[in-house]
Amino acid sequence: MHAEIVSIGTELLMGEIVDTNSAFLASELPKLGIELRWVSKVSDNPDHMAEVLGRAWGRSDLTLMTGGLGPTSDDLTRETIAQVLGEEMYVNDDLLRYLKAQFASYGIPMPENNIKQATLIPSASTVANPIGTAPGWWVERDGKIAVAMPGPPRELKRMWANEVAPRLREKNRSIVMVTKTWKTFGISEGGLNEMLAPLFVSKNPSMGIYARPDGIHLRALATVRTRDEGLALIEPLDVEIRNVTGQALWGVDDETPESLLASKLAANGMSLAAMESHTNGLLASTLAGAPGSSEWLRGGIVALGRSGLSPHGVPENVLRSHGPASAQTAEAMARAARERLHADVGISITPVASDGEGDDPVQRCAIGFDVRGRASHMELRYPSRLMMLRERTVAQALLGLLKQLG
Amino acid sequence: MHAEIVSIGTELLMGEIVDTNSAFLASELPKLGIELRWVSKVSDNPDHMAEVLGRAWGRSDLTLMTGGLGPTSDDLTRETIAQVLGEEMYVNDDLLRYLKAQFASYGIPMPENNIKQATLIPSASTVANPIGTAPGWWVERDGKIAVAMPGPPRELKRMWANEVAPRLREKNRSIVMVTKTWKTFGISEGGLNEMLAPLFVSKNPSMGIYARPDGIHLRALATVRTRDEGLALIEPLDVEIRNVTGQALWGVDDETPESLLASKLAANGMSLAAMESHTNGLLASTLAGAPGSSEWLRGGIVALGRSGLSPHGVPENVLRSHGPASAQTAEAMARAARERLHADVGISITPVASDGEGDDPVQRCAIGFDVRGRASHMELRYPSRLMMLRERTVAQALLGLLKQLG
Repeated sequence: MHAEIVSIGTELLMGEIVDTNSAFLASELPKLGIELRWVSKVSDNPDHMAEVLGRAWGRSDLTLMTGGLGPTSDDLTRETIAQVLGEEMYVNDDLLRYLKAQFASYGIPMPENNIKQATLIPSASTVANPIGTAPGWWVERDGKIAVAMPGPPRELKRMWANEVAPRLREKNRSIVMVTKTWKTFGISEGGLNEMLAPLFVSKNPSMGIYARPDGIHLRALATVRTRDEGLALIEPLDVEIRNVTGQALWGVDDETPESLLASKLAANGMSLAAMESHTNGLLASTLAGAPGSSEWLRGGIVALGRSGLSPHGVPENVLRSHGPASAQTAEAMARAARERLHADVGISITPVASDGEGDDPVQRCAIGFDVRGRASHMELRYPSRLMMLRERTVAQALLGLLKQLG
Repeated sequence: MHAEIVSIGTELLMGEIVDTNSAFLASELPKLGIELRWVSKVSDNPDHMAEVLGRAWGRSDLTLMTGGLGPTSDDLTRETIAQVLGEEMYVNDDLLRYLKAQFASYGIPMPENNIKQATLIPSASTVANPIGTAPGWWVERDGKIAVAMPGPPRELKRMWANEVAPRLREKNRSIVMVTKTWKTFGISEGGLNEMLAPLFVSKNPSMGIYARPDGIHLRALATVRTRDEGLALIEPLDVEIRNVTGQALWGVDDETPESLLASKLAANGMSLAAMESHTNGLLASTLAGAPGSSEWLRGGIVALGRSGLSPHGVPENVLRSHGPASAQTAEAMARAARERLHADVGISITPVASDGEGDDPVQRCAIGFDVRGRASHMELRYPSRLMMLRERTVAQALLGLLKQLG
């Protein structure tokens, strides 16, 4: 089964919002063994919608649509599907009753506009949306499937997980896609590509290589009949990649620097506190988002500039001797965070300085660690062009702490 | 001139990264008076690329491509353009010299793979990329333009701003698009749509309505010959929208809650400190990202749970009497942040509790303010389904403080 995603909405073409829905659906399809071939965005313009949906219905086994199911006059997904399939829309009484009941539960009468959310065509059935007013459409005819889902990401994700994915799994039992991802830090994309060139010739599993803030990722994708068959195809790649990447390999699949750090801290029974004067809260929010963080994270401090450090217990004499942008201050920040917040381990990030000037100066920053009183630091240097600066810095800080914890 | 964006890369279809490039380009095109009609994503599969690029070249005045310009064997954008236009690729000596010099400056020999980054076709000229190894292609033939730009967002944005946008502005002097956005909080999308229904009939300017974490936005888009003509068309809408939305209107165009707060604090000569135990650093990072924040932001504290509050000066007796999730604690947090960090104003966010249960419980949280010792708070309640919870909470906190500052 091969699929196509159509994201609908003029706001997508105005650059006002990023279309995260199609990325979400794209990441879900491999789990069902469905190959995604095409993704399009289209405005609310009815002619353009009809052109895109007509082509999708013609060439793809499965068309997944998001957006355009709202009550306003520019929500035209239902009308366009009806037109492309040459079917008539009608008001479904059950849906209308349900919709009116939903508005009654908010204590407001249903606006006249919303009646279109209670329509269907003969080839469509309803897909429940318990957390919004827009039900989805499941359209099936001539051996093809089209599914229209609402645009708000939370409604879409829930409808996908509870309704659409289970039905598709039922339909597509014969093919499975198995993937494995290896995550490295410290080797360039081109370098890794050359070192592993023979692997990239293979068609099944196929290999991909991607630059990310936390390093270079390799991904193998096997299209097979069973999960075991896929694992067997990927196993020799795993051996080869581990051989070649060595110490640069820090994780696989869903592992992140913060999830690995979370496991290590939990295993050691250690708690952590953070202080940052460079990454504006990204260190704290990354740690807070890690699994079980409420168990081991004692808190984070976002300090700004020289005067922002001493109120949090960074000694005045360290600041005076070395300045806020120094390795010594990084260590003092890690210690202050650890002591202030009663943690076993402190981590800090502070900018050091820029070398060079002009278009692409070298950025430097220092990362401080304090593990039960044992202080250390590392320094990062990179041309600023290599940066998604904050994300990369936080990833390196967490991988650095992981190494400190052994 | 109407345009099409084609984002290239198998990783986009695997859902591994969100395609922010097409959203960026989409937001830039209106400033040049260029109408974006189509957006597609396509994998590295050469047949699929040729199909998409062939259609784009056929139907669009301007095709903007991103990605597939790297050195690896699955970077096929150049090859596909050559195929679609029926032209031969050749190695350009100047480009090759430049590329070798770039690698020399990194202190490494140029990998053999990279030679393809020095190729052109007769209809293509080079677009400079001083911060990466992949130069762009500017292709012009038969009155049509196609531009191939690199995938890494920082390289793309720079190439766009310095090279591509200026050339396109030159070509498209006759049409201008003028937009205005109004930002409201506290009226529903459907409600605003009904209140302003007559405005949505107009074709030029056309109106759009969008739900965002900071409320409902209205956008007018006028396609005209001069900027003044556009402003004149939009002026009557401005009067009508201000009339109808009243107090719910909090900003226009690029204004954000944090930019408005930044202006207010700067105008009052006030400094700010923040403490959050609900939003995991988003309050701090939003404030740190506001214009001139180093002038007025004294720092942020990310506290976790009950034990995370007292180390930052939230009094034990307040925590004992009211618990960490209370309006009293919110006020005490704002005061502690203000006092600890020597600021004029403190702001805080703390969760209160969940009402109800099951699928869609009501979330509550308290926001505390302390303006030079004058404490106050506000409480938020909302069904969790309405949430991009953290973003919405931070936006409301900042708009709430703005009101406190008068």
